[in-house]
Amino acid sequence: MSKNSSRAAGRHFLQIPGPTPVPDRILRALDTPIIDHRGPEFAKLAKRVLEGIKTIFKTTNPVIIYTATGTGAWEAALVNTLSAGDRVLMVETGQFATLWKNMAVKLGLKPEFIATDWRTGADPAAIEAKLRDDKAHQIKAVCVLHNETATGCLSPIAEIRQAINRAGHPALFLVDTISSLASTDYRHDEWGVDVTVGGAQKGLMLPPGMSFNALSDKAMAASKNSKLPKSFWSWEDMLNMNKVGFFPYTPATNMLHGLAAAIDMLHEEGLDNVFARHARLAEATRRAVRAWGLEILCRDPKFYSPTVTAVLLPEGHDADKLRNLALDHFDISYGMSFGRFLGKYFRFGHLGDTNDLTILGALAGTEMALTLAGVPIKKGGVQVAMDYIVAAHASPQRAAAE
Amino acid sequence: MSKNSSRAAGRHFLQIPGPTPVPDRILRALDTPIIDHRGPEFAKLAKRVLEGIKTIFKTTNPVIIYTATGTGAWEAALVNTLSAGDRVLMVETGQFATLWKNMAVKLGLKPEFIATDWRTGADPAAIEAKLRDDKAHQIKAVCVLHNETATGCLSPIAEIRQAINRAGHPALFLVDTISSLASTDYRHDEWGVDVTVGGAQKGLMLPPGMSFNALSDKAMAASKNSKLPKSFWSWEDMLNMNKVGFFPYTPATNMLHGLAAAIDMLHEEGLDNVFARHARLAEATRRAVRAWGLEILCRDPKFYSPTVTAVLLPEGHDADKLRNLALDHFDISYGMSFGRFLGKYFRFGHLGDTNDLTILGALAGTEMALTLAGVPIKKGGVQVAMDYIVAAHASPQRAAAE
Amino acid sequence: MSKNSSRAAGRHFLQIPGPTPVPDRILRALDTPIIDHRGPEFAKLAKRVLEGIKTIFKTTNPVIIYTATGTGAWEAALVNTLSAGDRVLMVETGQFATLWKNMAVKLGLKPEFIATDWRTGADPAAIEAKLRDDKAHQIKAVCVLHNETATGCLSPIAEIRQAINRAGHPALFLVDTISSLASTDYRHDEWGVDVTVGGAQKGLMLPPGMSFNALSDKAMAASKNSKLPKSFWSWEDMLNMNKVGFFPYTPATNMLHGLAAAIDMLHEEGLDNVFARHARLAEATRRAVRAWGLEILCRDPKFYSPTVTAVLLPEGHDADKLRNLALDHFDISYGMSFGRFLGKYFRFGHLGDTNDLTILGALAGTEMALTLAGVPIKKGGVQVAMDYIVAAHASPQRAAAE
Amino acid sequence: MSKNSSRAAGRHFLQIPGPTPVPDRILRALDTPIIDHRGPEFAKLAKRVLEGIKTIFKTTNPVIIYTATGTGAWEAALVNTLSAGDRVLMVETGQFATLWKNMAVKLGLKPEFIATDWRTGADPAAIEAKLRDDKAHQIKAVCVLHNETATGCLSPIAEIRQAINRAGHPALFLVDTISSLASTDYRHDEWGVDVTVGGAQKGLMLPPGMSFNALSDKAMAASKNSKLPKSFWSWEDMLNMNKVGFFPYTPATNMLHGLAAAIDMLHEEGLDNVFARHARLAEATRRAVRAWGLEILCRDPKFYSPTVTAVLLPEGHDADKLRNLALDHFDISYGMSFGRFLGKYFRFGHLGDTNDLTILGALAGTEMALTLAGVPIKKGGVQVAMDYIVAAHASPQRAAAE
Repeated sequence: MSKNSSRAAGRHFLQIPGPTPVPDRILRALDTPIIDHRGPEFAKLAKRVLEGIKTIFKTTNPVIIYTATGTGAWEAALVNTLSAGDRVLMVETGQFATLWKNMAVKLGLKPEFIATDWRTGADPAAIEAKLRDDKAHQIKAVCVLHNETATGCLSPIAEIRQAINRAGHPALFLVDTISSLASTDYRHDEWGVDVTVGGAQKGLMLPPGMSFNALSDKAMAASKNSKLPKSFWSWEDMLNMNKVGFFPYTPATNMLHGLAAAIDMLHEEGLDNVFARHARLAEATRRAVRAWGLEILCRDPKFYSPTVTAVLLPEGHDADKLRNLALDHFDISYGMSFGRFLGKYFRFGHLGDTNDLTILGALAGTEMALTLAGVPIKKGGVQVAMDYIVAAHASPQRAAAE
Repeated sequence: MSKNSSRAAGRHFLQIPGPTPVPDRILRALDTPIIDHRGPEFAKLAKRVLEGIKTIFKTTNPVIIYTATGTGAWEAALVNTLSAGDRVLMVETGQFATLWKNMAVKLGLKPEFIATDWRTGADPAAIEAKLRDDKAHQIKAVCVLHNETATGCLSPIAEIRQAINRAGHPALFLVDTISSLASTDYRHDEWGVDVTVGGAQKGLMLPPGMSFNALSDKAMAASKNSKLPKSFWSWEDMLNMNKVGFFPYTPATNMLHGLAAAIDMLHEEGLDNVFARHARLAEATRRAVRAWGLEILCRDPKFYSPTVTAVLLPEGHDADKLRNLALDHFDISYGMSFGRFLGKYFRFGHLGDTNDLTILGALAGTEMALTLAGVPIKKGGVQVAMDYIVAAHASPQRAAAE
Repeated sequence: MSKNSSRAAGRHFLQIPGPTPVPDRILRALDTPIIDHRGPEFAKLAKRVLEGIKTIFKTTNPVIIYTATGTGAWEAALVNTLSAGDRVLMVETGQFATLWKNMAVKLGLKPEFIATDWRTGADPAAIEAKLRDDKAHQIKAVCVLHNETATGCLSPIAEIRQAINRAGHPALFLVDTISSLASTDYRHDEWGVDVTVGGAQKGLMLPPGMSFNALSDKAMAASKNSKLPKSFWSWEDMLNMNKVGFFPYTPATNMLHGLAAAIDMLHEEGLDNVFARHARLAEATRRAVRAWGLEILCRDPKFYSPTVTAVLLPEGHDADKLRNLALDHFDISYGMSFGRFLGKYFRFGHLGDTNDLTILGALAGTEMALTLAGVPIKKGGVQVAMDYIVAAHASPQRAAAE
Repeated sequence: MSKNSSRAAGRHFLQIPGPTPVPDRILRALDTPIIDHRGPEFAKLAKRVLEGIKTIFKTTNPVIIYTATGTGAWEAALVNTLSAGDRVLMVETGQFATLWKNMAVKLGLKPEFIATDWRTGADPAAIEAKLRDDKAHQIKAVCVLHNETATGCLSPIAEIRQAINRAGHPALFLVDTISSLASTDYRHDEWGVDVTVGGAQKGLMLPPGMSFNALSDKAMAASKNSKLPKSFWSWEDMLNMNKVGFFPYTPATNMLHGLAAAIDMLHEEGLDNVFARHARLAEATRRAVRAWGLEILCRDPKFYSPTVTAVLLPEGHDADKLRNLALDHFDISYGMSFGRFLGKYFRFGHLGDTNDLTILGALAGTEMALTLAGVPIKKGGVQVAMDYIVAAHASPQRAAAE
């Protein structure tokens, strides 16, 4: 944007790892007159989304819909299943895992926090070891982020379930999928997750303001004995009222209209196509980063995130300065850095309602911003990304296998 | 709507006492692309609404904005100021007061519930008496609904503050204004309220999904010692982050755009004009009800609600049947009935972004629906309402004095 | 709206006889990203609306869609079928008939204008007489407005066709349905109309900016010999390009999205239900007017318009003053008066996407505005309208028969 | 889009040379309730846009606003100034010039058409020669397209005015700016243009459905003597009614709301910034094309279009096949080819509400589509475009001078 201008032309490139760009169709679905949340039209809508959302979590159990952002659904998962003083096993995959751990402390739980260097996903073996050590079964829940939004590392949920099983430990398994749901495969039932926490504003392409708890039978049983105080987050009233198509208190009707549209759109594209698209864009981004000669924060390819790539800058280069420069010159936003790596990396989101050309435009903006910022890179990252995408289009199978 | 038709023509008449019709200007403000909630454009927006919302509560203290419906803000008011086992004094003005009381129980508080017949507001003298009895100052908070949405009774908040003062009792004063805020005068600071709970979806004309806690210094001090577990609802992080224009977790950016528009619109109309409009429409409605020969649930004019009128049907007439008939024939929705009066009354909302002709159309629909339902009424309620409104327009002062 | 206020609350009551209120669903359909007007997605849309619009005109022949307001479609009807100096027979039903006649003059045609007192529809007998007199068949077209928007008089199109046939005259029959289409029955093919002129902004519930020519085989044949210069309005290129789903020049893609929605909505309600609704609201309005003791401009019930009622004020009362007062106090707009009756009447539109309660609210506003303006009326018009509508809902058949 | 998918994710890349992407702010301005087009609120809006549009044409004379696409404004320019049989001098810059010439023939004018090879702009010397030859001043108007949308060649309007002056010829000067207005500098008054034809759906960023005639005193004088029949297009009624803020027939109120927003947005960015942005994106595109080893249809850099670049494919490669492939794989649309070059080139639009990253994403899509289509190109076009844009951001002055 020119200095003497108060308007930036064209579309902002929103490459934060969520909230993601809301498609026009969903914005239009949100932009509807209020309906009576106790009337027959509402009940039809509610039943439709309460059924539909199950197909996204791949569960046949109920999914609770909260009018609150994802942080609220974190709290709901804990207060509905646990009691003051309960031990929980958590993994420090990064900033958001740390926030969830801090929340557990505030709520009076006793988290044990498996450390990592913030450059990897959760290690099933480490979890298994901790659980085996816990002969008395004092650990009541294992809490893991499927995708650590702060670092771009994906944890292997199915493998962690196997590790818990191998340890023969009865702990509940709580998984956060806020930045992975509807962007990469996730199977609540098949993977044996007890509570899956999800959010609206990433793969579901909605604005922030709605979040989810997908439940297992075991979780619902645990909620009967959980003693943490709860009212707004309580599953019980929700489950009862939802059965007849209503909510115990005023729901966000317009967001439910949006959710209905989002579920339709995901199935119109096809969930597997949605996942393949995210995988392709993530790989294209990583190839560009490597071509620039920059380092990806996630140091092990098996943990690569399908939704966000964190890019380390060389020593002495300030990632926040780069973010500001990119915003000023190219109207592009990245995610900030956190914790021990504060100022050292930026996060490039490639999730939600996006496509090849948008990501290539964003990579072009990134290559140019790095150049303008004086970060020593090799040119050609966009070209490498294009080569990969062309190959993927020429032969989808081969590209997937590469 | 005809039987052989799948579409109702024209606008739905949404006479529930909230969520209220969202004005087009606010819907358009919500219908905007997502912006980075950690970027400079967001900080500008956040500062604007965080300042602006104070003018609605008439406070100079901070107001916390939650991405959650009003029930959440109820919980926030309690968990930030109180500790397990604390006694709270509440008044059973109706269904919503009962729900708040139930919440207090679930959270581990010990509510004392002053009974009423659900046809009146809270009685300052009764509150004063209870507080005088509490020599040991075990009561930590007095909780009152400014407007009981379930019955259409308004409680005298300023007088209750005086009663508390007269009793010389140090209890906190928590007030729910969910269905009164921005519809009738309310003065958080002047009336000495410690926590005011507000919601977006009534007088503020937004969709559901946002709620508020307006604070006093005393409330903020109490929050330092409160021991109820809290994380999502915690004021502390909010107050810290809000100072620099951000939120501790992803806020509902689009709702904040809507809130900015709502605050502007209320001031463009002028708050006093907004209140006068609500008063006029409420009085016109009550006159129509009386002309029909029906009884208003609120039995004392000094407690009449400016936002909702609950109308009792004669013995033997089913209010829910009436509501369904009115919806089928005239595409109008009313609020349902509750508790001891279940099925005996319906609620006619006259709040939010509405005006003389909309209310007269809705009253016409009501008179016709009553007729079709065979409820024995005298015709002429709409005429009486028109006479009142004409007089109000001919001489606003005289009408106000009547 | 208060004097010290810059915002009127609630919905404006738009009782002009068009443009009519655009339903939210259509506004959302218009609010979509631009698509390539030469691409496959556009062709699908174009074919859908080109077929769909035929069901509204009740024709199996092509309908031309112009990106222009109704005045343009008037011009198109004339320049595609006639040649300089051609005689045309027109009927002076009111202001809009006069404008069409003036247009004919400007285009070099020789209109003969059958006079009326502006308080009646076109008289088939008068048309027959004129045609019988024209032994040489110099009259090339008979032009009639189905509904004269300026006076609220509907002309009997089927009867006029019979009159033309009885006279054995080969003139083309051109009919304007701008303010009647999709509000009352109209049958282009069955009634033997050669060109029907239609507009988007009335019964079709779209914003202004689109208009139509429905054609007969005879009209298409006439267009081969017509010599008036034409390019933008020429049917020829339109017919050719439309066959493959495209337009000879850039069409208003967004309006076509809106048109698709409008056609769907009319069929969801059912055309016959749409017509019955308009008839009911028109009759309710006329009963209110009569109850007030005011005179309806259309002096013969057989010509009553289903879409607009023109109301004469008593001598000495200024209709424009009334319109301003009503706008200031009650945020309601009426249509203005014209010609020999300038300032003597106002027009109350009851067409498009409206319903019982909206019309009753508008009638209430009218009764109140008349009172405030000091027009000597009897009160009770709204009550009479309500009585009629209740009866219609109680027994739709009986009400229709009355 | 995958074969087994019915939804393409993310934004369509609309690289046709108009209609251009409509910014959300304008879509929201269009998405507003209808207002009375004869009421005071409308008059305010009309006056605002009638004044505002003058700043875009750089004129102090009236600008006529038509509810019709640009083709209509072409017709208006001719029928308001000319009479049957008048000779007009036109220049065959390409397809759209040919269509305007064909229109002139249909309207009964006698165009003389200066031929070109469709790869250049209009030649002032050729026009001067023709005018000098016309001693009898039978040529009544010179008609030129500022930007020939079909070929991407810009004609030098100021120089053509000088050529007309040098020839001492009194012909009117009519200029089409449909695909140049608000994208590159244009000065109706200073350059002595008599009628400027403009459209809404390109640089003005509106949907199609509105067009303009900017007038000179000489044009208005000519309109008094013009004898072509006209009614809808007639300036006279427009000029009279516009003076008081109204239109002679129903205007497209919603489009006028959008126009008001568009004018504001152009001035917020700053017209000179708008022009610089278009110049930068056009040059980046041309550099990419050259790097691919492809030929630009416009063969002389002095005629390069700032809004659209037509790209010739090597012999034997079908441009329409390429367009389809690009649409299927990358959801990008280009403009089609015309006339003698049918199938031989595609047009890449870089105009309207767009920016660096969008154009780079589109160029990436183009390079990939060319590759997939087997068109023999050198890779690296996007890289060259990025290098140019980085340089422009590093030093705007130097880049402009290159």
